Amino acid sequence: MGTRVALQAALSGYQVAIFDISPKALETSQKLMVKIVQHLAKGSGMDDTAGRNAIAAITFTDNPNVAIWDADLINESVTEDVEIKNAVWEQFGKIAPEKTIFTTNTSFMLPSMFAEISGRPEKFCALHFHDVFYSKVVDIMPHPGTDPQLVPLLMAFGRKLEQVPVLVKKENHGYLFNSMLMAFIGAAGKLLTGEVGSIEDIDKSWMVNFHMHMGPFGILDSIGLDTAWHVTKNLPDNASQRFAALLKSYIDAGKLGEKSGEGFYKYPNPAYKQEGFLD
Amino acid sequence: MGTRVALQAALSGYQVAIFDISPKALETSQKLMVKIVQHLAKGSGMDDTAGRNAIAAITFTDNPNVAIWDADLINESVTEDVEIKNAVWEQFGKIAPEKTIFTTNTSFMLPSMFAEISGRPEKFCALHFHDVFYSKVVDIMPHPGTDPQLVPLLMAFGRKLEQVPVLVKKENHGYLFNSMLMAFIGAAGKLLTGEVGSIEDIDKSWMVNFHMHMGPFGILDSIGLDTAWHVTKNLPDNASQRFAALLKSYIDAGKLGEKSGEGFYKYPNPAYKQEGFLD
Repeated sequence: MGTRVALQAALSGYQVAIFDISPKALETSQKLMVKIVQHLAKGSGMDDTAGRNAIAAITFTDNPNVAIWDADLINESVTEDVEIKNAVWEQFGKIAPEKTIFTTNTSFMLPSMFAEISGRPEKFCALHFHDVFYSKVVDIMPHPGTDPQLVPLLMAFGRKLEQVPVLVKKENHGYLFNSMLMAFIGAAGKLLTGEVGSIEDIDKSWMVNFHMHMGPFGILDSIGLDTAWHVTKNLPDNASQRFAALLKSYIDAGKLGEKSGEGFYKYPNPAYKQEGFLD
Repeated sequence: MGTRVALQAALSGYQVAIFDISPKALETSQKLMVKIVQHLAKGSGMDDTAGRNAIAAITFTDNPNVAIWDADLINESVTEDVEIKNAVWEQFGKIAPEKTIFTTNTSFMLPSMFAEISGRPEKFCALHFHDVFYSKVVDIMPHPGTDPQLVPLLMAFGRKLEQVPVLVKKENHGYLFNSMLMAFIGAAGKLLTGEVGSIEDIDKSWMVNFHMHMGPFGILDSIGLDTAWHVTKNLPDNASQRFAALLKSYIDAGKLGEKSGEGFYKYPNPAYKQEGFLD
């Protein structure tokens, strides 16, 4: 995610530095950017010179001081682990210039969890991206201590990054879209564990009614079954617990979804992408 | 719904009779068919002769005996009212030929509620259509007493009507798709009543992430807020009750959605269809 956000910011004309403690991760990030730029150029029919120049202008560094010495804004996309995020924000709070706005790209946590330790809660807000290039929505979610003046500024920043900015007026696990996504995926899980419908029939229902190229189980495979399990296992109701147990059985068998080659479907040619699936 | 199912069956080459107790409803049905056929012809670039011939071959009657004297299959789409459906199935059970298969197109009820009174539970099954021409899914949902041999027969019939048949293995309110639809719409309602997001921002999140031309509140307007209220008010959790109360306040103000000219949006030109909505 950090790679995609950084690349879009560079393409939008911002000076960007990308920081990671691992030099290997930085190398991977740069390679991924090259791939994305080639893909975008192919889609638009233009050459990828502008994209290559944007990447060349990005500072890739494992030194946090080099990354943020003059930063107007930080967007953090580290692992969804409270301890790690706390450590990162404590460090940034100490070394970032006074002007720097702090934003977290957390998927399922809340900005108030890190606002105090960052040392500048009033300049702290969630700025959450989805896919950046395909799903162009950015959630702006302040916590109760966020300076209200930060909100229009971040809305404008989101627009400059070619995203559709939406305001999450109160802290909410899952912002707007992910709340709805998890609700319908939970309903799909309940249909499956309750033996009401098959994986394929549940997906077909969704795909045909909404004219989409994936149903809930295809979407789960693309999200990753491990990620979905982390969210589902914390939900208190019985249906969610049964679905979490099913997800765990897939994970234990090494089936994490698209990234591992198999989840509910087998990749790279899952059944739902094959001709005749909807016959 | 009955109109659309009957028209598709006629277009697929079946001999069709459409029965309603009201001659006025039959007239409306015929007029709607003409409109649909014109619309379909326009979309395919062909003339509407085949469609007009199909309509001309349909028997429109307020006499149930005329409608079902030689029927192989009945698909019932009467009002979602247990008493009325019971009365209809009791009558059909008495006058239909022995060979006739009984199917109900109920949206949120269960076939087992009407199977006994029809007098032929083993030949009774839900056969539930969505939109027929735009959303081409048909749910086949047997009740515990349905003859299993009926299922493949109804799957084949669904395919002949150019639908994607899906099997609902156990009785479930909302089949497959409607269960998931109500789950994500419920989540959207919770975001709205909890003042987490605005109607527009919730819809934007859905539309942009899923590349759809409507979000949950646009969908609610097209379903009808009265229909959505009937389902939501029966759900036991607090969030659903709060959302049902909000829907009721719209209904009491005459805002039923697209059909009344206003719901969450104003029609015929709702904000979400206007240029710039996603800027």
